[in-house]
Amino acid sequence: MAMTMAEKIIARAAGKTEVHAGDIETVTLDYMMSNDGTTHLTIGMYENLKHPRIADKNKLVWIVDHNVPADSVKTAASHKKMRDFARANGIAFYEGKGVCHQIMLEKYVSPGQFIFGADSHTCAYGALGAFGTGVGCTDYLYAMVTGQSWVLVPKTLRFELRGSLPQGVYARDLILTIIGKIGANGANYKAMEFGGEGLASLSIADRIALCNLCVEAGAKTGLCEVDAKTLDYLKAHGREPVAVLNPDKDADYEEVFEIDLSEIRPIVAKPHFVDNVVPAEECSGIRIDEAFLGSCNNGRIEDLRVGAELLRGRKVADSVRFLVVPASRAVYEEALREGLLKIFMDAGAIVMNPNCSVCWGSCQGVIGEGETLISTGTRNFKGRSGHKDSFVYLASAATVTASAVKGEICTAESLTK
Amino acid sequence: MAMTMAEKIIARAAGKTEVHAGDIETVTLDYMMSNDGTTHLTIGMYENLKHPRIADKNKLVWIVDHNVPADSVKTAASHKKMRDFARANGIAFYEGKGVCHQIMLEKYVSPGQFIFGADSHTCAYGALGAFGTGVGCTDYLYAMVTGQSWVLVPKTLRFELRGSLPQGVYARDLILTIIGKIGANGANYKAMEFGGEGLASLSIADRIALCNLCVEAGAKTGLCEVDAKTLDYLKAHGREPVAVLNPDKDADYEEVFEIDLSEIRPIVAKPHFVDNVVPAEECSGIRIDEAFLGSCNNGRIEDLRVGAELLRGRKVADSVRFLVVPASRAVYEEALREGLLKIFMDAGAIVMNPNCSVCWGSCQGVIGEGETLISTGTRNFKGRSGHKDSFVYLASAATVTASAVKGEICTAESLTK
Repeated sequence: MAMTMAEKIIARAAGKTEVHAGDIETVTLDYMMSNDGTTHLTIGMYENLKHPRIADKNKLVWIVDHNVPADSVKTAASHKKMRDFARANGIAFYEGKGVCHQIMLEKYVSPGQFIFGADSHTCAYGALGAFGTGVGCTDYLYAMVTGQSWVLVPKTLRFELRGSLPQGVYARDLILTIIGKIGANGANYKAMEFGGEGLASLSIADRIALCNLCVEAGAKTGLCEVDAKTLDYLKAHGREPVAVLNPDKDADYEEVFEIDLSEIRPIVAKPHFVDNVVPAEECSGIRIDEAFLGSCNNGRIEDLRVGAELLRGRKVADSVRFLVVPASRAVYEEALREGLLKIFMDAGAIVMNPNCSVCWGSCQGVIGEGETLISTGTRNFKGRSGHKDSFVYLASAATVTASAVKGEICTAESLTK
Repeated sequence: MAMTMAEKIIARAAGKTEVHAGDIETVTLDYMMSNDGTTHLTIGMYENLKHPRIADKNKLVWIVDHNVPADSVKTAASHKKMRDFARANGIAFYEGKGVCHQIMLEKYVSPGQFIFGADSHTCAYGALGAFGTGVGCTDYLYAMVTGQSWVLVPKTLRFELRGSLPQGVYARDLILTIIGKIGANGANYKAMEFGGEGLASLSIADRIALCNLCVEAGAKTGLCEVDAKTLDYLKAHGREPVAVLNPDKDADYEEVFEIDLSEIRPIVAKPHFVDNVVPAEECSGIRIDEAFLGSCNNGRIEDLRVGAELLRGRKVADSVRFLVVPASRAVYEEALREGLLKIFMDAGAIVMNPNCSVCWGSCQGVIGEGETLISTGTRNFKGRSGHKDSFVYLASAATVTASAVKGEICTAESLTK
């Protein structure tokens, strides 16, 4: 019987030829990623086990990215616990190297893999045709000890893309449009599968932005069909696909959405929900205090290029702190090489070290009472980036940068015309 | 009667022709600098005054540098208070532009000025022949409201320099040697005046490092005689000296120290006091967890050049987080231009935005229990950079960088031979 991408990948992870939505399967994990959000808790539980063991240390990847460098004695202690355990047990360990998902995509993820990450935006790995999903630290611990876990095979929503995004419109606008359309619970425990002839027009960076936010519609994962762009990206990063598991033509989808990319427009998610979206123009004139270009969603070189191009010869408004945070060291170094960091500095932006920064809202660029942030981060929940009475608008790198220049929310188009 | 530099500058600020150690004088301030360490407290007191007024807004310079960007809702609130007040009252305001003293030296300080700073290391301004001294926020408030304050004219310790520092030895080694010699209370409420033919061999960056740490010997201020280098620096920064007030030949010094610069060697201040100094070699082999190149003491382009030169073709040890934090945007941009940031990144360092960082130990690079930091910061007091049971060693940019490469304290010389 025909299968979706999610079904095929889970079947492979379960060692079966076929699985279907609604089945519960025991799967073997390809990788288990964990960051400084919860790893110290996992270690604490691990150390209380009667017979602690690690199934396969080579499948564990631990990344300090949320509070880098440590901003308090408490986070310093969490990092130290993680660092010491990783060293003692031969676990791949990254610190100060970038946001976990970006590092995973640069160095580990391959099509066909089934990956747990102790972080909700692990669904981003679907950009490369892998099933990535976020888990809590107890699920993580079980997987770490046994190498396996269970999964309820999700139903799939199919997004059939055609055409291409207009000039000045980005994958961020696309996924916010989709989330606005289906709602924050619109894909609860479902896979969101992206394919169709329009997919070819989206870069891997676009696909990451797309899959990364699927969890904001409640999805178990996001998945892009594997194509020549996927294989090129893998090759450029020195990897081969584990298995190309594109969906069968007659796979059983819960619903199919036809999306004409050319109809997508700049969009903004208003406080305090990701699905609270409106055309960007409707937010015109809202004064901002801070702008953030970065995160696992929009901190890649493609995003920095968009921001830098807009900033060339312009200045960040005096009233705005504009934080630019490359998603990884590789991105930082490329931005340095291309002269983008100079453009950001010349314009008055604050260039930071790769990390989760104000998207996570606990150590860098925290906003105060009544303040407004426009952000390429992943979430705009109440208090997400600072005071409980602050306001976060989500938008593309272009809209965020244009707003930083103007000091109030505006589209890039309105800035340049 | 002959006067020291401190006496001459205070006489000018008091509108008198002559003052002497032991006199109490009412002085008019040239500048009043305040940062996010205490400005929110000053504003709180100001707002409770019966008749709040600002004597001269053009003499106030407010700088957010301690926690940049804000790391918590609390600091975000402090910054907002400061930002809003500065805007409402037309006060020069800097945020994310660098460490306060570096900005003051780049943009404001001139020979002959008398300057209050609500920060203990304000004594750094003596590098340009100005009397800078740290005050608490109540003294600051009085000065802000009246434009004046009082000062007990300090006695002066004269440091007569000759020769020049050997290759691989820096002003940081010189001042740590002096503090070790006279002790942490050795200059309590005294001025430390640096002159002699050896002064000419010290760059302005060297003189800043020298004067900046005078407070660690208890000094009211540090002062370097004004010479051609001072005037060149001012010219390059678009300023003229207010008054060149070098000491009279027969000024009355409490004590004169003859220092042969050629005898200075790399030195380290061990935990937990700045005067707990030993030759750097005696710390050889002490394992470090973190290294810090930055701060108002050693975050200038000259320091970054020393670090980058040592790092060229080398790597930071896997076990070390090496934080590189330019002291200002100007320094950052110059480092970018010279390719130094690329060298730091290639070596695996974490390049941060200009701010006080781990020297202040409250938001970036905080170290955990039992951890060891080697730092170009200003202080190594118990808990200064993190957990109360952590350890901070102070040393030059060269020693810090070499130690970051080796993973344990070592001199640059030992690394290169």
